Amino acid sequence: MNPDITRERENATFDVEKLTHILDGGIEKTKRRREIESLVISDPDFQSEDLNFLSRSERYDAAVKKSAQMILKLREYGISDPEEIYCYKSCVHRGRSEPLDLHLGMFLPTLLNQASPEQMETFFIPAWNLEIIGTYAQTEMGHGTHLRGLETTATYDPATQEFVMNSPTITSIKWWPGGLGKTSNHAIVLAQLHTQGKCHGLQAFIVPLRSMNTHIPLPGVVVGDIGPKFGFDEVDNGYLKLENVRIPRDHMLMKYAKVEADGTYVKPPSAKLTYGTMVFIRSMIVGEAGHALAKSCTIAIRYSSVRHQSEIRPGEPEPQIMDYQTQQYKLFPLLATAYAYKFVGQYMNQVYHRITGDISQGDFSELPELHALSAGLKAFTTWTASAGIEVCRMACGGHGYSRCSALPDIYVNFVPTCTYEGENTVMMLQTARFLIKSYRQASAGHQLSGIVSYLNESERRLQPQSVSSRPTVVNVNDLASLVDVYKLRAARLVKLAAKSIQQELQKRVSQEDAWNNSAIDLVRASDAHCHYVVVKLFAAKLGEMGDTGIHSVLSTLALLYALQGIQQHSGDFLQTGLLSVPQLSQVSQRLKELLAQLRPNAVALVDAFDYRDEMLNSVLGRYDGNVYEHMFEWARRSPLNKTEVHESYHKYLKPLQAKL
Amino acid sequence: MNPDITRERENATFDVEKLTHILDGGIEKTKRRREIESLVISDPDFQSEDLNFLSRSERYDAAVKKSAQMILKLREYGISDPEEIYCYKSCVHRGRSEPLDLHLGMFLPTLLNQASPEQMETFFIPAWNLEIIGTYAQTEMGHGTHLRGLETTATYDPATQEFVMNSPTITSIKWWPGGLGKTSNHAIVLAQLHTQGKCHGLQAFIVPLRSMNTHIPLPGVVVGDIGPKFGFDEVDNGYLKLENVRIPRDHMLMKYAKVEADGTYVKPPSAKLTYGTMVFIRSMIVGEAGHALAKSCTIAIRYSSVRHQSEIRPGEPEPQIMDYQTQQYKLFPLLATAYAYKFVGQYMNQVYHRITGDISQGDFSELPELHALSAGLKAFTTWTASAGIEVCRMACGGHGYSRCSALPDIYVNFVPTCTYEGENTVMMLQTARFLIKSYRQASAGHQLSGIVSYLNESERRLQPQSVSSRPTVVNVNDLASLVDVYKLRAARLVKLAAKSIQQELQKRVSQEDAWNNSAIDLVRASDAHCHYVVVKLFAAKLGEMGDTGIHSVLSTLALLYALQGIQQHSGDFLQTGLLSVPQLSQVSQRLKELLAQLRPNAVALVDAFDYRDEMLNSVLGRYDGNVYEHMFEWARRSPLNKTEVHESYHKYLKPLQAKL
Repeated sequence: MNPDITRERENATFDVEKLTHILDGGIEKTKRRREIESLVISDPDFQSEDLNFLSRSERYDAAVKKSAQMILKLREYGISDPEEIYCYKSCVHRGRSEPLDLHLGMFLPTLLNQASPEQMETFFIPAWNLEIIGTYAQTEMGHGTHLRGLETTATYDPATQEFVMNSPTITSIKWWPGGLGKTSNHAIVLAQLHTQGKCHGLQAFIVPLRSMNTHIPLPGVVVGDIGPKFGFDEVDNGYLKLENVRIPRDHMLMKYAKVEADGTYVKPPSAKLTYGTMVFIRSMIVGEAGHALAKSCTIAIRYSSVRHQSEIRPGEPEPQIMDYQTQQYKLFPLLATAYAYKFVGQYMNQVYHRITGDISQGDFSELPELHALSAGLKAFTTWTASAGIEVCRMACGGHGYSRCSALPDIYVNFVPTCTYEGENTVMMLQTARFLIKSYRQASAGHQLSGIVSYLNESERRLQPQSVSSRPTVVNVNDLASLVDVYKLRAARLVKLAAKSIQQELQKRVSQEDAWNNSAIDLVRASDAHCHYVVVKLFAAKLGEMGDTGIHSVLSTLALLYALQGIQQHSGDFLQTGLLSVPQLSQVSQRLKELLAQLRPNAVALVDAFDYRDEMLNSVLGRYDGNVYEHMFEWARRSPLNKTEVHESYHKYLKPLQAKL
Repeated sequence: MNPDITRERENATFDVEKLTHILDGGIEKTKRRREIESLVISDPDFQSEDLNFLSRSERYDAAVKKSAQMILKLREYGISDPEEIYCYKSCVHRGRSEPLDLHLGMFLPTLLNQASPEQMETFFIPAWNLEIIGTYAQTEMGHGTHLRGLETTATYDPATQEFVMNSPTITSIKWWPGGLGKTSNHAIVLAQLHTQGKCHGLQAFIVPLRSMNTHIPLPGVVVGDIGPKFGFDEVDNGYLKLENVRIPRDHMLMKYAKVEADGTYVKPPSAKLTYGTMVFIRSMIVGEAGHALAKSCTIAIRYSSVRHQSEIRPGEPEPQIMDYQTQQYKLFPLLATAYAYKFVGQYMNQVYHRITGDISQGDFSELPELHALSAGLKAFTTWTASAGIEVCRMACGGHGYSRCSALPDIYVNFVPTCTYEGENTVMMLQTARFLIKSYRQASAGHQLSGIVSYLNESERRLQPQSVSSRPTVVNVNDLASLVDVYKLRAARLVKLAAKSIQQELQKRVSQEDAWNNSAIDLVRASDAHCHYVVVKLFAAKLGEMGDTGIHSVLSTLALLYALQGIQQHSGDFLQTGLLSVPQLSQVSQRLKELLAQLRPNAVALVDAFDYRDEMLNSVLGRYDGNVYEHMFEWARRSPLNKTEVHESYHKYLKPLQAKL
């Protein structure tokens, strides 16, 4: 054990194990998670060479191998709880996406939700047993977020009772679905349904892609891998071009909408039923943002405690780089953010399950709010976490660029969350739409409920006379007071965005152009709203902490999170008259004090995330802090060192020397 | 040609070709650059498969092959001007780093600068003819930026007149030098010189690493590749462990410092002589930041003009995504930044050459300022450009993640500039040191010269009474007025940082701790200083534009750059009393107008950067805008599609299906 990191642990002021339980959601959950991790890590079937040393084809190969093993073992061990399956899977693939993700996460659930009982009978058991390996093909080359623009067609032919599936244009080629390129033999294809001369919009169809015997693509099916990407080397994201592919009528998923034998289209009872999955995945991503940032902070903070560099005081030994104020200022606010997002993730999960219960009883009332919240928070947290991972990486200096740090991998595997499941800017604007609608209701005197109810309250408090008097009552050392300031900032920026739309309308532009011409303000309002929600939930979480030591260190983190947000957006707080210039100086001063205060607990706070070395897979983030010898050992194993002399020497350099 | 992009070009209001000449530095330079590009692009020896489809070993192999060809052809064509060599090399390797970079860019120049005449005779011709292939080994596992901390030792043994080279610890292993792993047979090794029982600090030694005949590492030399990184797949960044390797006395570079036969150490006449290269490389990086951002903007803006998505007005065709205000707000300020950095790069280049002239005449007076400026600007521009590349990438939606967009490559190849040649935070603090020193001189009544002279002026203007009256005189539509505001912001923040140090000193902490406890403020001050310099140089450049059309569009860009910076840092401008709240609202409003104003010229402005498709190598950034068909074609060529059925199906999936 590196003596520096031992000393850091000795200086901690709280019980690390207890904090781990809080993060896991209880002592029993910690125990079970560790059991599952041990099960995977000690399993010889899941040992493999460092993925960084493999080609893409080898990485895909290794992932398919592990996924196949995983399916067998989950059944062998009888692991069936969705959360436990997720945990097992994350361990097997070390948090990476894998070729069967969409089979397990989209194909099977979509069957469960949208197949008729007869269809369940036909498809579910074969899919469960991986005779049918499926994916979910929605995105096309020309259309991602805008679903109505999808161009793939399914035209019903009553003569044969078949749908004729087509990709009529180059932009209509399905593009990106995971597992589509090489792994799947079926896909649920989203296509525009045409029957009896009319288009009835998007429906889902089960389309066989490859022979069940030979795995060779079926006639009319042009399918393949979309080529190398920024990360996601293990996944065969694919393309699919359909050329007059005929499928039987019962291959359209018919639990809700239906096409009868003669081609008559029967509408579904409600359009809201397919909302759920989307909201669930976005809520999950918020927790993933916390997770990705927590891993990055673990690596950067442990490394900062064992790396010594330069000098603060001449003549003295080189300090740990964590002693530099600039290093603390890079890492500690991100550590606070990681905690914040983990807690918000827990909250979203609870809300989702509560609301799902309501929905199953036919109560959709809270869905719009959850939809708006999950959209905005997904964007807010993924943007911040992505940028934060890179800050952590660069805080490790040169070694952060080595694949052995694991940080490049964390980045390329996480950053796509900014784009998939709803492009972030579009998400922010969806939340803004809900905020503006709520604001207008509040202005019209309606009483709002839920998280936006502050728009009522602030409508009253934000009258000009009260604005000028506010700064004096804010206490920058009091979290409750800061939550209040974040709330008022959000209210103010929602109002500003609404005003911008109003001003545009007065120029006689259309509603739609007024919206587009105010989009910058709308995104800013959503951002402030999400920031308020995060600060509020972090503060609320503190109320649940019984342990004094933990309460104390998490209060410091929460305060740091809130104050750093204010410093970064100081213009907003000044512009809206919520804080004064002297108060901002106080904020800066207090921030520095908080950094120094957190310093002794920094390593313990990342230890509490409880990532085993095998899961983190980072030489810089090792628990024992012995980074240099392991970096050397890792490098020596790398492929270019398999021979002392690379063949290119004989092929090019030696001949060149002879010619000069 | 895609009709959308044709229409964009028709709408441009200025002469693109003339702007290209300005960016190149004159019509003749444009002509010559294009000649060199054509020479490389039409050369069959430089055709290769898409690098994205190769393994790392294959990419290294391809790069060595091209570099060997390049050396031969440069001589064949008689290209010897350094700028032209650089241009040719960039074309051959498409802007990527390559295995001979350090031989050409560091080994040969270091010989030229630091070898004695006798050493030149021994080493230069063999090195010129690549008999000796060299690299420059400075960074160690444990030390990067802090050179005094390097641990490699060179101990003089007068008995044999040799130096004994050692890597005494694991942290002393040389780590990162490009070309060290497999390519080089020699290295200039920076090591602590020990002779006659005393350490004389860092000296440079020529150390043979591999046999000149077999390329096998010599006894005592442990050398290899450091393993895969975030990008830089073509370069064999290496490690080097020296175990009692003996080199003759004349292998220490002895133009300045010397060790005599008996071991007597002779000091160099001036320590400033080795400063130059560092300053030059940092200045170059500023231009590279403009270059990387220009390429990214070219891709994202062209793609935004041909990509249609969603709807602004219901029922109408899907708009080009460049019509969304949020898209404009992402891309146009970055476009302005790319222009700004290109102009700053030109300026730095000129200043460097002027000052180098002075230095060669023994005049070092301007060196400290250039040193400080190049350090800060290197950090300021590389941080912004790195983040900006990712914004461009994500503005391309899902397709920005595909390697065929080229954006992932631009990012991983550029982002290391934030760390190498001086870690950015350390660079900012170096600039801050110069600023604080200058501020103290100004406060003591000294008249400053050069770029920091504003610290004199503002010291007078920033008296409290004038502050409160300032906001009224700022004109947010006048660039000169904005330059002034940036200047005062910088002055204010330098003063704040100085005040912070003062306050710390009053708490009786040491100078060094006071500095560290104020580091956040110091970085902020440097940042503001650099921002001022960039705005000022952009404004100054406008004065050189004779063409009305070009002057007009670049003025819009410069104004956009200045106003967006104010909006992003509005807290600074409000906090220092330089702008009022109503003025900030004006800034926001004006920004939106500028985005709309730039919209018709956006494609033409990236066309003016004049990147040939072969250089950009981006499907999304194609000049003809025909992105989708080429994306499909690219994907079909990718390695996973070489077989219809991947072997993993037979190895794992079919057996799994049989077991379930």
